[in-house]
Amino acid sequence: MMMTLEEAQELVSNEFKKLTFNFQPVELYEPIRYVLSQGGKRIRPSLVLLATNLYSSDVSKAIKPAIGLEIFHNFTLLHDDIMDNALVRRGNPAVHIKWNNNVGILSGDAMSIKAYQYICSCDNDLLPSVLELFNQTALEVCEGQQYDMNFELLPDVTEAQYLHMIKLKTSVLLACSLKMGALLGRAPQGEADILYQFGLNLGLAFQLQDDLLDTFGDEATFGKEIGKDIISNKKTYLLIKALEIANGDSLNQLRYWISSENFDSAEKVKAVKEIFNAHHIKTLVNTKIDSYFELADQYLQKLNIETEKKHALKLFAESLHHRKK
Amino acid sequence: MMMTLEEAQELVSNEFKKLTFNFQPVELYEPIRYVLSQGGKRIRPSLVLLATNLYSSDVSKAIKPAIGLEIFHNFTLLHDDIMDNALVRRGNPAVHIKWNNNVGILSGDAMSIKAYQYICSCDNDLLPSVLELFNQTALEVCEGQQYDMNFELLPDVTEAQYLHMIKLKTSVLLACSLKMGALLGRAPQGEADILYQFGLNLGLAFQLQDDLLDTFGDEATFGKEIGKDIISNKKTYLLIKALEIANGDSLNQLRYWISSENFDSAEKVKAVKEIFNAHHIKTLVNTKIDSYFELADQYLQKLNIETEKKHALKLFAESLHHRKK
Repeated sequence: MMMTLEEAQELVSNEFKKLTFNFQPVELYEPIRYVLSQGGKRIRPSLVLLATNLYSSDVSKAIKPAIGLEIFHNFTLLHDDIMDNALVRRGNPAVHIKWNNNVGILSGDAMSIKAYQYICSCDNDLLPSVLELFNQTALEVCEGQQYDMNFELLPDVTEAQYLHMIKLKTSVLLACSLKMGALLGRAPQGEADILYQFGLNLGLAFQLQDDLLDTFGDEATFGKEIGKDIISNKKTYLLIKALEIANGDSLNQLRYWISSENFDSAEKVKAVKEIFNAHHIKTLVNTKIDSYFELADQYLQKLNIETEKKHALKLFAESLHHRKK
Repeated sequence: MMMTLEEAQELVSNEFKKLTFNFQPVELYEPIRYVLSQGGKRIRPSLVLLATNLYSSDVSKAIKPAIGLEIFHNFTLLHDDIMDNALVRRGNPAVHIKWNNNVGILSGDAMSIKAYQYICSCDNDLLPSVLELFNQTALEVCEGQQYDMNFELLPDVTEAQYLHMIKLKTSVLLACSLKMGALLGRAPQGEADILYQFGLNLGLAFQLQDDLLDTFGDEATFGKEIGKDIISNKKTYLLIKALEIANGDSLNQLRYWISSENFDSAEKVKAVKEIFNAHHIKTLVNTKIDSYFELADQYLQKLNIETEKKHALKLFAESLHHRKK
């Protein structure tokens, strides 16, 4: 029997419950416990286990590296929250708010090293390939965060620049999770590379969905305020495409709303959405999202394993595809 | 012919000149270039090479891991400077001053990953032992920094607590450098462990010398202002011992100077030095320093290699022992 996503999540969640991080000095480790006890969907480590399970019935050796990837992911969120001055993470005060910036910086540093410790807990002969993959990915995630910060200060961002940024900031870690799982399951290199591409395309689709839901989601279902990106002039895929396509009056109106400093939020959201609608931005983004899901599915089909084995990853992709939140 | 410290430093220095870190985005990598181009004595990577050279005539395979340790060391300085709000590093503005805190945090994160990439560039079969050593050390350096920050807020710090803190914050990375060099030279495990202890004791001696020079150094030779630790009530080994030994009037005077908020700096330095002198603190600290150098020397003698081969490390220890700056 192959493992389901829910079973993988359950297994990962139980492992995290066992982690006490009961080390000295408490001032360094308490914020780490705080961050890691807040849960979340544990998607990355669960994908590691699902990918391992495609090639090995024993996923036990993949558990520690899987946990390492989740610790790394949470480290990046912790440091990003300081840089973005975000107040809340998973419904709780961010670490730098609950404590202070110094605690956030140093506990984050310790988390990134802890991540390496867990990832290094794989079989010795797999260390070179696992670490080459992880080092490269970790560096790309930093590069993605830097591009994201750069974009806030740039007057214009192209579609290609934007897609490159979200690939680095979000997609490569999902891709890395799947590829690492394959390596830990001792899959052939080609299979590991295909799973990487599967994850990369899912990640791109996921991020574009985030952009779409922020503007066109249903507030009750989405669980977050709608229109925040429009209000803050965030250079999302929607805005970038609208600026590329619109012309004449429509473009002038869009530029007016972007440059206006005193505005009624609801009025701005309504007006910008109308411009988006006039240029069929929602359809256009959905088409792009569909194309990434289609590509991901093609990579999944390419895997040289029985179709039934692919079921959990196929279900995962489908659940993402239809998500409303 | 065995490599001398100066030859190792020259080799490391030339390797650093070759590192362009010419990657995208420039906003992430320029601060890294800035930090790594400022030189310094490159003690840690040089010790890696000297230790490798004890067991192997070919040190080429140790160069990249040696560079990794120096990158890691500079990463910790970068993040420490943010946390300590230090303005200057190696005579130049600190990264968070020249740019800003966010640049300092993210470039530091990227540096720590780059450090791992370089350290992982050793022979594959050495990866498990090299990484176990490095992960453990890196975590201890974070713990040391946390203890150091904790101590600023504590009313009293014991000698044992202080020695534990400087061991973690400073000594373990020197010890790690020597042990890693031994591992890379394929020394027997016992030899690598002896070199670790040699480095640990040198590091402890070095840090106590720093405390001593800040109060009793010769300003012209030391190159830094004398008495800064006294002025800021820094819980150095000197102050901790004086608070432990002094009693009656002498203790009251010391506590008076620590608690006084309005004082003439020169007067405070003079008064506290007189209390230190009355209790022979300088002699006491020098005795402690000598004992660490003696221990280091004993470990050096224990190494199971020809005496001539130990010459470079013996000279290094002696040059530290007699340093006036």
